[in-house]
Amino acid sequence: MRLLLLSNSTNPGESYLGYPKQTIKSFLGDKPLNIVFVPYAAVTFSYDEYAAKVNGSLNEVGLTVKGTHTFDNPQDAIRNADAIMVGGGNTWKLTRTLQDNGLIDLIREKVQKGTPYIGWSAGSNVACPTLRTTNDMPIIVPLSFETFNLVPFQINPHYLDDNPSNHGGETREMRIAEFIIQNPDIYVVGLRESTILHFEDGKLSLIGERSARIFKHGTETVELTSKDDFNFLLKS
Amino acid sequence: MRLLLLSNSTNPGESYLGYPKQTIKSFLGDKPLNIVFVPYAAVTFSYDEYAAKVNGSLNEVGLTVKGTHTFDNPQDAIRNADAIMVGGGNTWKLTRTLQDNGLIDLIREKVQKGTPYIGWSAGSNVACPTLRTTNDMPIIVPLSFETFNLVPFQINPHYLDDNPSNHGGETREMRIAEFIIQNPDIYVVGLRESTILHFEDGKLSLIGERSARIFKHGTETVELTSKDDFNFLLKS
Repeated sequence: MRLLLLSNSTNPGESYLGYPKQTIKSFLGDKPLNIVFVPYAAVTFSYDEYAAKVNGSLNEVGLTVKGTHTFDNPQDAIRNADAIMVGGGNTWKLTRTLQDNGLIDLIREKVQKGTPYIGWSAGSNVACPTLRTTNDMPIIVPLSFETFNLVPFQINPHYLDDNPSNHGGETREMRIAEFIIQNPDIYVVGLRESTILHFEDGKLSLIGERSARIFKHGTETVELTSKDDFNFLLKS
Repeated sequence: MRLLLLSNSTNPGESYLGYPKQTIKSFLGDKPLNIVFVPYAAVTFSYDEYAAKVNGSLNEVGLTVKGTHTFDNPQDAIRNADAIMVGGGNTWKLTRTLQDNGLIDLIREKVQKGTPYIGWSAGSNVACPTLRTTNDMPIIVPLSFETFNLVPFQINPHYLDDNPSNHGGETREMRIAEFIIQNPDIYVVGLRESTILHFEDGKLSLIGERSARIFKHGTETVELTSKDDFNFLLKS
């Protein structure tokens, strides 16, 4: 299995997919590929606009994607894909639309058989067993909370340490503290912006300068860097 | 119907329930009351600790609450309540536990018959038709997304204008923009910290110095203050 799970598409002030595009290119290699893009997390803009935005960036490194929405049958699109890319946006909208289109099991099985998977933000969240570590507003009711389950742990994308000043709402760490009490058997990876989880050749590692914050009930929360081994996360 | 719906319990740097406790006292009056407190939104601390924290503040204004968890039958506790108070925490945990205890319809009917309802944060969110404008992490799957439906609009508690600097994740306004596209018939009230929605004598108004931000699909987003009439929100 080959996974590239990005915290976020874009760092503030940079161009769209600016920081990860070379990593995506290296991950996918030089051979021409049929890359199928799932744009369902988009809510405030169209799927066409979303695919165009992704291509606007990835064309610069020689990659082109085709949105699932441009195919008569999105299931066939997935079946024929050389690589699958799932974009960010609203995780609830993404999950519900994947479910409505019958793509959850199909993408899981396809990726488990070796098709490379690239996700960012919501697209990384749905690589996990469920969407239950999303930051997004539940604007639509999914058929279930279960997602691709490509990895046995949960990712919290856009992990951040700070709250805006003078705000009394929960910090992200407090929200994850609630999650691990309610779900004591599951690891949560707080994946900071500008970092990526990479799984290949049986090895899970972190790409990026910033550390990831690893939460599990009953164990000390730790910070791991790109030099550390992340494979213990796969054993739960 | 009498409602006091607070954005938050506590402003940063102030004592617990510091800013609203005089308002709560004025709302409930001087007569001794059997105030039943729903502590189910607590995740990282016990229901006993939660009720003690609330009493630690409200005793100063002559009020005492009893947690639903201290009664043999929480349904009977609600039936016999003179006032109902629902505390903040995790909205998903609150909703699921209300559902598991069969309290959704019971509290709705009791409040619709005139029992005063006070909620803060998650406790204000569940006064709405659904929990779909929560900021909280979905750490537990509710039986449904439907909540008390005491008002026909949605409240987003802890509404805030800013993102932490140098963070690429969605702002709150962007999240609500997604909600109103997906749910075009529903008003959303962005209720800033330190403000309260008050319904009494058929009149809905805002208490507090800061304005509330009102969102609806296809209409201009507006800021309303404590001098404005909020009753149009009740007509949807």
